[in-house]
Amino acid sequence: MKKIEHIGIAVKDLNIANDVFAKLMGTPHYKVEEVESEGVRTSFFKSGPNKIELLEATRPESPIAKFIEKRGEGIHHIAFDVEDIEAEIARLKEEGFVVLNEKPKKGADNKLVAFLHPKTTNGVLIELCQESVINN
Amino acid sequence: MKKIEHIGIAVKDLNIANDVFAKLMGTPHYKVEEVESEGVRTSFFKSGPNKIELLEATRPESPIAKFIEKRGEGIHHIAFDVEDIEAEIARLKEEGFVVLNEKPKKGADNKLVAFLHPKTTNGVLIELCQESVINN
Repeated sequence: MKKIEHIGIAVKDLNIANDVFAKLMGTPHYKVEEVESEGVRTSFFKSGPNKIELLEATRPESPIAKFIEKRGEGIHHIAFDVEDIEAEIARLKEEGFVVLNEKPKKGADNKLVAFLHPKTTNGVLIELCQESVINN
Repeated sequence: MKKIEHIGIAVKDLNIANDVFAKLMGTPHYKVEEVESEGVRTSFFKSGPNKIELLEATRPESPIAKFIEKRGEGIHHIAFDVEDIEAEIARLKEEGFVVLNEKPKKGADNKLVAFLHPKTTNGVLIELCQESVINN
């Protein structure tokens, strides 16, 4: 857990939220990216060594649509930057955490990612992310 | 907004959560602090330039007790490190954000803090925090 890589925030309308967060952060988002496999459109803001990721659902069955339906807009997950995601998954499984995808998958922002189930982390959805070695 | 200073996580039992987060973060908490005025007992973990703050209510009317009653355990707020909290409060008010306490107050970890109402920030409770100049 080298640092907090980003905080993911579920929003209803990415364009409106981009304006709000540009004012809040004092700087506009620097990119928008769609992750088709997750059913999300995301935007990113920098805050020193960290990022804010806004997430808008692109289809009704997207996890972000379901989250907003249940809890409203708000903080969705914390992502930690890790050196070696496979080693970290193995370590956390050994410690008793429930890893949602044991094989890292490709996430936004050219990362390899894995998630821990909130039931083993005091209600917090945690993402592990590692910078991809191969840029494809 | 120089960086994410910490993420605040509401938990039911600080001792149990400290064990969970020690395993998760790979390092134990480095301090426990009670903020009597807020009705919370907190513990802190380091993650590179960032921190995780766990919050346990010390009385039933504590905002943390109410949060858990309504939503269960989970992420409670994001705190951003700011250079000059009074200037930042003035800037954000001008931008239309609702600042919950316009005069910074003393928070945990020797910080001056102010909060933004989630209704103006897509459901996210945001804390601004500045390192106190006077250490008392």
